[in-house]
Amino acid sequence: MKDALSPIFAALADPTRRAILASLTHGDATVAELARPFAMSQPAISKHLRVLEAAGLISRSRVATARYSHLEAAGLQKASEWMTAYQRY
Amino acid sequence: MKDALSPIFAALADPTRRAILASLTHGDATVAELARPFAMSQPAISKHLRVLEAAGLISRSRVATARYSHLEAAGLQKASEWMTAYQRY
Repeated sequence: MKDALSPIFAALADPTRRAILASLTHGDATVAELARPFAMSQPAISKHLRVLEAAGLISRSRVATARYSHLEAAGLQKASEWMTAYQRY
Repeated sequence: MKDALSPIFAALADPTRRAILASLTHGDATVAELARPFAMSQPAISKHLRVLEAAGLISRSRVATARYSHLEAAGLQKASEWMTAYQRY
């Protein structure tokens, strides 16, 4: 069974990764820009970005030497749809 | 910071635990009842139930010798609200 939901929920199970997604709602950002509000090194942020990318929650593109992260809301949508089914209980 | 969301998302990051929550929408159930559809031992199911209980997604009560699990939808609601904020992006 292809389970797309588990990596999405696992990626969301971390406050730094959720904060990164929140930052990206304001627009695409580099690792340096994303690292700024956190007491965290750029390699640590990069590691979180790889988890988010593997879950399909962000995509990354390179512009000259900068690497931009972009929020991919479709993954959140999928997880949200799963949860919506249980809200009436 | 008290982070209630991370254990909720972590608990949801497993297909068996999501299936257990789906089963509980049909009503409270014992470990034996919950284990039946899975190729899994009752201790393995009990372990999943402890994760769900710690995340606040289920509660458990004892009736005579049986221990019943009950879906607590408020936790899902909390996670769902977090995600709803990102759906428009």
